[in-house]
Amino acid sequence: MKVGVIGGGQLGQMLAQAGTSLGMKFSFLDPAKDACAASLGQHICANYDDKQALRQLAEEVDVVTFEFESVPAETVAFLSDFVPVYPNAESLRIARDRWFEKSLFKSLAIPTPEFANIESQQDLEQAVAEIGLPAVLKTRTLGYDGKGQKVLKQPSDVSNAFAELGNVPCILEGFVNFSGEVSLIAVRGQDKVIRFYPLVHNQHNQGILHLSIASEQHPMQGLAESYVAKVLEKLDYVGVLAFEFFEVENGLKANEIAPRVHNSGHWTIEGSVASQFENHLRAIAGLPLGSTHKRGESAMLNFIGSIPAKDQILSIENCHLHDYSKAFKAGRKVGHATINCNNINDLKQIVSHVETLIKG
Amino acid sequence: MKVGVIGGGQLGQMLAQAGTSLGMKFSFLDPAKDACAASLGQHICANYDDKQALRQLAEEVDVVTFEFESVPAETVAFLSDFVPVYPNAESLRIARDRWFEKSLFKSLAIPTPEFANIESQQDLEQAVAEIGLPAVLKTRTLGYDGKGQKVLKQPSDVSNAFAELGNVPCILEGFVNFSGEVSLIAVRGQDKVIRFYPLVHNQHNQGILHLSIASEQHPMQGLAESYVAKVLEKLDYVGVLAFEFFEVENGLKANEIAPRVHNSGHWTIEGSVASQFENHLRAIAGLPLGSTHKRGESAMLNFIGSIPAKDQILSIENCHLHDYSKAFKAGRKVGHATINCNNINDLKQIVSHVETLIKG
Ligand SMILES: Nc1ncnc2c1ncn2[C@@H]1O[C@H](COP(=O)(O)OP(=O)(O)OP(=O)(O)O)[C@@H](O)[C@H]1O
Ligand SMILES: Nc1ncnc2c1ncn2[C@@H]1O[C@H](COP(=O)(O)OP(=O)(O)OP(=O)(O)O)[C@@H](O)[C@H]1O
Ligand SMILES: [Mg+2]
Ligand SMILES: [Mg+2]
Repeated sequence: MKVGVIGGGQLGQMLAQAGTSLGMKFSFLDPAKDACAASLGQHICANYDDKQALRQLAEEVDVVTFEFESVPAETVAFLSDFVPVYPNAESLRIARDRWFEKSLFKSLAIPTPEFANIESQQDLEQAVAEIGLPAVLKTRTLGYDGKGQKVLKQPSDVSNAFAELGNVPCILEGFVNFSGEVSLIAVRGQDKVIRFYPLVHNQHNQGILHLSIASEQHPMQGLAESYVAKVLEKLDYVGVLAFEFFEVENGLKANEIAPRVHNSGHWTIEGSVASQFENHLRAIAGLPLGSTHKRGESAMLNFIGSIPAKDQILSIENCHLHDYSKAFKAGRKVGHATINCNNINDLKQIVSHVETLIKG
Repeated sequence: MKVGVIGGGQLGQMLAQAGTSLGMKFSFLDPAKDACAASLGQHICANYDDKQALRQLAEEVDVVTFEFESVPAETVAFLSDFVPVYPNAESLRIARDRWFEKSLFKSLAIPTPEFANIESQQDLEQAVAEIGLPAVLKTRTLGYDGKGQKVLKQPSDVSNAFAELGNVPCILEGFVNFSGEVSLIAVRGQDKVIRFYPLVHNQHNQGILHLSIASEQHPMQGLAESYVAKVLEKLDYVGVLAFEFFEVENGLKANEIAPRVHNSGHWTIEGSVASQFENHLRAIAGLPLGSTHKRGESAMLNFIGSIPAKDQILSIENCHLHDYSKAFKAGRKVGHATINCNNINDLKQIVSHVETLIKG
């Protein structure tokens, strides 16, 4: 089976590493000459809206998926005429736009922060009057790693905020005083079977995911699963979906979904029976899903900007390096480490050790 | 780091899957257009003695290794002038020739079957007179999967045996009434550190490896390690080495070594902390070795000729498919399954299940 991937970054790379074992071959569409996944398959070096390139991709492969949600809607529509695309266009349309996304949560009675659609400074001021401060203003589309958002704490933060985010459609969200953040990675097959990985605790630094921990069974596992199942079924979703939640007193509030394999699921490569990458591919290929069971206790630490001394990382027992072969650059995800142990104390100790190396 | 691999089969493919996480890129030299590893890197499609192609490979990469031991000695000699090659030429020279190999074991006081060098039918008859029957006649070079060998049971088997193996240099080995076969996968780094995986039980069908089991600690682990360490140190070996033994009363008899990652070590992908592929790459790249500790109980079953119904294989919990993307052909290794469980009873049950699927 040949799989086409829109985007050729580290997610595409890890998909190809997993899919190779399933007998799959890969083609990546990515305009970047140095796309890091490119060496693991065919590389169609073209823009995402290049019809000729899309045609070529469709002809080369049996199924198409993507590694980021900002793929132009027309790209998916165009491809869908020639080749199956998973997850489907509707899932992508919803997940790429925070307004559609939160509206979906609301319609499914999934708790989410208060939110309002903002198309002007006037809209913003009215919404602030209703929702109150602090609040978070986010562009509806294209945001990632905390980019395209602004926390509004006091009235003076509001006055110029819409312009500061570029005068583009936004949503305003009530600021959630969360006690923690968790995400649930789920996968749904073409046979409609759903499997869930365990809830993962996530910690961000400056808006970018820093640490994910998959350890003890979380008391909200069942609740989170019920929310995610609603979304998967509503969208007739096929593939891996990541769902981010805020932990609040007595429950969860939905933050956002990602219609793809997700950074907070990278630990599944070493930490579960079948990884999120393998399961995404099984799903889109119409194969039975693999087990999402945890193996031991796991943590994942992102390397942002650069990778600390490789020799030292590789000398740590039970620590697995993932170097994406990307040029180092401030704020860029260039690799991660997964730590996998039989007990939480060892896990925490190694996490601290790696954090020390990250800080240099 | 860029790694050159002589050969582009499934071993090359699994090296590339592992090495990608270490930030490595791969170039494969293989004359086969459809070499299965080719899509995971550059493919130099040329003969192994093609000087221009070797030159190109040497220029593209930082280090060269190989996935089979029959690489022409001149190829290694030529490459070594331009780029480091691991394991070294001497290790390859020994491991590719059963006479040199067994002579090395003998010189290191490692027990091995009685053996004799055979360059003619006359040599053979003399050796049979000394060693007795049954015995096994094997070509000194190029044998694999039980090819290039003949069991001599009675005098009439002897008369034409040398011609039947093609009138090429052979060795005659005393037939070992073994109770079982085991192999030890070891890795030695450039810093001379050695690590061993646990001894694995191997079962062959018609001369081809069928099943490997890595489970309880084997009473001969320490003895096997002492033999393998002698060879590694004698050869100043760098990389993964596989050592096959016969189990006999009160000990082990050395069968052969393979200077590379080995089929009986494929279970390490899911069944150990760092796989044989990762550790081979760490060694040849001069990086610290990874942990060879076992994770749970593992078994590996080869798919010979064809892969049974994929859907059924993929439906078995704790069973991992490895499809090499090779055309099906009688006698050819086209994939394997690794089974990984927390207890031996589950392991055995799943092994039986997969065996049933293999038999069709
Ligand atoms: N309404 C909110 N209240 C409080 N904190 C918030 C809110 N929205 C976002 N944050 C914080 O900002 C982080 C990033 O927000 P969000 O997930 O919406 O953006 P993103 O750019 O999609 O991030 P990523 O790509 O890492 O998922 C959240 O994980 C959370 O820590
Ligand atoms: N001297 C011997 N006495 C008894 N059985 C033997 C002997 N030599 C080989 N065999 C049997 O034949 C099998 C294959 O032999 P050997 O390992 O030498 O060949 P090979 O072609 O290199 O195999 P492979 O590629 O699978 O390692 C052994 O695993 C063993 O089962
Ligand atoms: Mg987020
Ligand atoms: Mg053998």
